[in-house]
Amino acid sequence: MEEVIRLVHGNGGRFSHELMEKHIMKHFRNALLEPLHDGAQFAVSAGRMAFTTDSYVVTPAFFPGGNIGKLAVCGTVNDLAMNGAVPKYLSCGFILEEGLSMETLEKVLTTMEVMADKAGVSIVTGDTKVVERGAVDGIYINTAGVGFIPDSVHIAPSRVEADMDIILSGSLGDHAVAVMGTRFGLTLPESIHTDCAPLNHMVGAVLAKEAENVALMRDPTRGGLATVLQEIADSAQVGILIKEETLPVHEDVASVCSMLGYDPLYLANEGKVVFFVRREATAAVLDILHTFDEGKEAVCIGHTLAKNQGRVGLETVVGGIRLLDMLGEDQVPRIC
Amino acid sequence: MEEVIRLVHGNGGRFSHELMEKHIMKHFRNALLEPLHDGAQFAVSAGRMAFTTDSYVVTPAFFPGGNIGKLAVCGTVNDLAMNGAVPKYLSCGFILEEGLSMETLEKVLTTMEVMADKAGVSIVTGDTKVVERGAVDGIYINTAGVGFIPDSVHIAPSRVEADMDIILSGSLGDHAVAVMGTRFGLTLPESIHTDCAPLNHMVGAVLAKEAENVALMRDPTRGGLATVLQEIADSAQVGILIKEETLPVHEDVASVCSMLGYDPLYLANEGKVVFFVRREATAAVLDILHTFDEGKEAVCIGHTLAKNQGRVGLETVVGGIRLLDMLGEDQVPRIC
Repeated sequence: MEEVIRLVHGNGGRFSHELMEKHIMKHFRNALLEPLHDGAQFAVSAGRMAFTTDSYVVTPAFFPGGNIGKLAVCGTVNDLAMNGAVPKYLSCGFILEEGLSMETLEKVLTTMEVMADKAGVSIVTGDTKVVERGAVDGIYINTAGVGFIPDSVHIAPSRVEADMDIILSGSLGDHAVAVMGTRFGLTLPESIHTDCAPLNHMVGAVLAKEAENVALMRDPTRGGLATVLQEIADSAQVGILIKEETLPVHEDVASVCSMLGYDPLYLANEGKVVFFVRREATAAVLDILHTFDEGKEAVCIGHTLAKNQGRVGLETVVGGIRLLDMLGEDQVPRIC
Repeated sequence: MEEVIRLVHGNGGRFSHELMEKHIMKHFRNALLEPLHDGAQFAVSAGRMAFTTDSYVVTPAFFPGGNIGKLAVCGTVNDLAMNGAVPKYLSCGFILEEGLSMETLEKVLTTMEVMADKAGVSIVTGDTKVVERGAVDGIYINTAGVGFIPDSVHIAPSRVEADMDIILSGSLGDHAVAVMGTRFGLTLPESIHTDCAPLNHMVGAVLAKEAENVALMRDPTRGGLATVLQEIADSAQVGILIKEETLPVHEDVASVCSMLGYDPLYLANEGKVVFFVRREATAAVLDILHTFDEGKEAVCIGHTLAKNQGRVGLETVVGGIRLLDMLGEDQVPRIC
């Protein structure tokens, strides 16, 4: 008989322990998680830390190139990286639906293990709740993470100034199109898959050389590039101008977008980063990015302006300026 | 028209910002949360930290004496306190159901604000996802937390030895009975309400005086006192003997338990702590606990043994010994 999650797996008793020992610890075992106390304890040096969290409710939980577990590890790793931090420890809270197959859970756990290894982080504390059939949609995951910020790194919207270059690490829309295409049952071209990846090593390489020249980094997830740029224009009080012709969108992604009526500027990415850098560092940052798989299509997409504070303009291919704004009504719910 | 949560409140765009600005920031505003970046940044001193997480899926979300927001703050604060840490920063991830009334969310947020103030912690980073009607049950909350462990404090199962006293800070079963009674639509006596409370100040007062004599602390939440004692007997490799006659159970709680067939030893508490202390410190620890509302019924319930490693015995009122074990099949799902 297929082994499935039962309500008792979440009651904190013998069955919870069994789930932990037989399934979860197998993938996440480490010295800090081992004691299975009410949390993890670890030493820290004096300095600065970053702390972040995200819940993941993507549907379907599996899609080309990844699954909810990949998002849960990479998303929080990347949020730490966007703070300039070296990601170190993750927590993991599962909310599982009664009846979820253990095989599905195992696949998600395996992916999380692989991604945590790749990113160089440990999952040190966690929690599992089980709810009745229908009270949740299969599996939701929350991760929180902590990381340590090197002394040389100062990432903040307040450091963004006029005449900084804006670098995008790669193509737009891959993740959202992979998820939505799967949800709609489309037969997607093989080239389409999520861009979900841990970005901390690439970002760390940029900061190791160019920390003083990097004012801000953001990963354009929910809301897409346009929303992130609008947020930064607002918080940093600069104008932003980007050029449509520079924006990388894979051909197959563009086709699906035009079929479904999506604008790649507003689609979620899970393996991209936007850098605001001093112009003198632009070439050097691009050179570093191009040495990474995740950054091989990196490109300068525009720059900040002293004028037009709080506004984001897109210079279109035909030459006009389209004012962008944050995402309004939803195109694509439950994308991450 | 009643204002409700819509899917667009979770899309990361304009409506997400509005929800954040108009509703969430109002309650949680602080200097670290303010930048609304991908996480919070803060300074740390050299030392040890604790890191923990829990997801909350309690149903119903409101019950006598509290709601899911109270649990979400106190639960994570208490897990940090059980590590001997001074809780400092919390993250908060909401998963909201489309159609949830804004009034309900406001009530939960208000409670979280009050509890965070009471515990002396700040909610510094967060995330909100919205899922379609039916894909979640109203509101789920994940909190993770970090805290700093004073140098004098060393809390670990490995420090538990034979002949230590076991102190319980108060009565058993109040939380579970308050939630389950509400779920079943019982008319509960006024005396029954959740014991959910932040325990960090009380625990901190004990550790300030008696850190060297406190080997381990645990809050008997899911699985109840019996499960927690069994876990400790296993991990510390000691025997445990507790006396039934010492166990505080409020009369009305005991009545509901006997009606519903619950054993208070296996019911979740949300404002209780079990201390394993050196015997010479027992009186002093009890004296400190008795000065707190949350500890005024604290009592020594038993002690550890060199023999019977991994076993927990209950000396019953009639004189026999009943062997306890972890909670097996569930009595009460979705209690926190």
